[in-house]
Amino acid sequence: MIGRVSLVGAGPGDPDLLTRKAARRLAQADLVLYDALVAPETLELAGKARRFYVGKRAGRPCIAQETINRLLIRAARRGARVVRLKGGDPFVLGRGGEEALALAAAGIPFEVVPGVSSAFAAPALAGIPVTHRGLSSGFAVVSGHAESAWRPILESLAPGSLTLVVLMGLAQRGAVASLLLARGWPARTPAAIVWAASRPESFTWRGTLAGLADAPTLPGAAGTIVVGEVVSLAAALAPALPEQFAAVGGSL
Amino acid sequence: MIGRVSLVGAGPGDPDLLTRKAARRLAQADLVLYDALVAPETLELAGKARRFYVGKRAGRPCIAQETINRLLIRAARRGARVVRLKGGDPFVLGRGGEEALALAAAGIPFEVVPGVSSAFAAPALAGIPVTHRGLSSGFAVVSGHAESAWRPILESLAPGSLTLVVLMGLAQRGAVASLLLARGWPARTPAAIVWAASRPESFTWRGTLAGLADAPTLPGAAGTIVVGEVVSLAAALAPALPEQFAAVGGSL
Repeated sequence: MIGRVSLVGAGPGDPDLLTRKAARRLAQADLVLYDALVAPETLELAGKARRFYVGKRAGRPCIAQETINRLLIRAARRGARVVRLKGGDPFVLGRGGEEALALAAAGIPFEVVPGVSSAFAAPALAGIPVTHRGLSSGFAVVSGHAESAWRPILESLAPGSLTLVVLMGLAQRGAVASLLLARGWPARTPAAIVWAASRPESFTWRGTLAGLADAPTLPGAAGTIVVGEVVSLAAALAPALPEQFAAVGGSL
Repeated sequence: MIGRVSLVGAGPGDPDLLTRKAARRLAQADLVLYDALVAPETLELAGKARRFYVGKRAGRPCIAQETINRLLIRAARRGARVVRLKGGDPFVLGRGGEEALALAAAGIPFEVVPGVSSAFAAPALAGIPVTHRGLSSGFAVVSGHAESAWRPILESLAPGSLTLVVLMGLAQRGAVASLLLARGWPARTPAAIVWAASRPESFTWRGTLAGLADAPTLPGAAGTIVVGEVVSLAAALAPALPEQFAAVGGSL
């Protein structure tokens, strides 16, 4: 008897923004391996499952990716219905592809359950559409975790050509802003940071690219950086939305 | 008594990929205005609502955007709970921002319910992670509808710097491919088209950028174009996934 692994996106945080399929897979699960950014209320949906945290501690992985892959394979071979739960979407900067390849190579039945990515949901909930007629017909999503990953991509984008979303980039927002300014993005380009979108503790900062480096730091909170003219729409939209984000500083 | 408008993302098509909040808003709705690409099973969740199609017919809008805005405002003023249902996510190339601005200007209470965007879910379900360690640390999403929108963005991207996703671009895939090749993207760059992802009638084509212009046409079907090295992962992942997409032609 062989089990099954579901690579599941948990969405931006609010359990209500899980997909119906994700909620059902959690309810059916025997075992859940979950990352940082997964809300406690979301885990409670996995009522009968054993749950293990395999995310980062103090910015470093507490378990090697290869170990996670082996845990998934071993549990499925023992017949477990396993949910691998990742913040946002499992295939958007989530290393889900590596786990999928390991499962495929081991002959383990698996599926992908896409989730709502913070890349566009965090801005949306703060009143920022990543695309908008006349302002931007596209957007780029980049990992801000390692400079070796984001630098070549940001160097390849023409200034202001699309909306830029940087995930996991708070720690390096000064370096990101410097590079964009050096590349010719106007200093007055609107920019925002959205922390803990869809969660009760959400915060937002809105200012300009020139001010991004000096935007406040909220220790421990994950955030999404957005750069582009679309950020200016939040001046009209954010006050009208029910999800009121507390604002920290900012000039827009 | 004033009603409320929910701008709701319907996800890629499968009603199981609706968020729990979207499903609840549909069940509560008095009125649903919906676009193309929304599945009949999804609409059935709005059991007590009047439902109106306001999407495109034969590629052209059947109702002007201004008329849709007025319908939303008028219904809310009469006390209705209105769902504006859009394929994917309402703020990803869906003109949801324009509707939100109109509602804010009219003082109508509204909310945004983000949805799973086909931009990454269609590739994911076909075995293509839009990001993957060592292959791509980011992706760009572009509207392929009007050349005036996609040309400046594609001209601004350095060849092969990130995964490229083109939504609503099937009709212009030849022109998109020509531009990328002229800009220096290698002809052998893996490319894919995913039609009707998450739906029973889904199809996929995988080949190279050089072959994209001659990829088959499925009349009436919407599709997502993906260009980048990550497409090569589908050779290992697609056969292992439960959601088997019929393949039409292709060389990968």
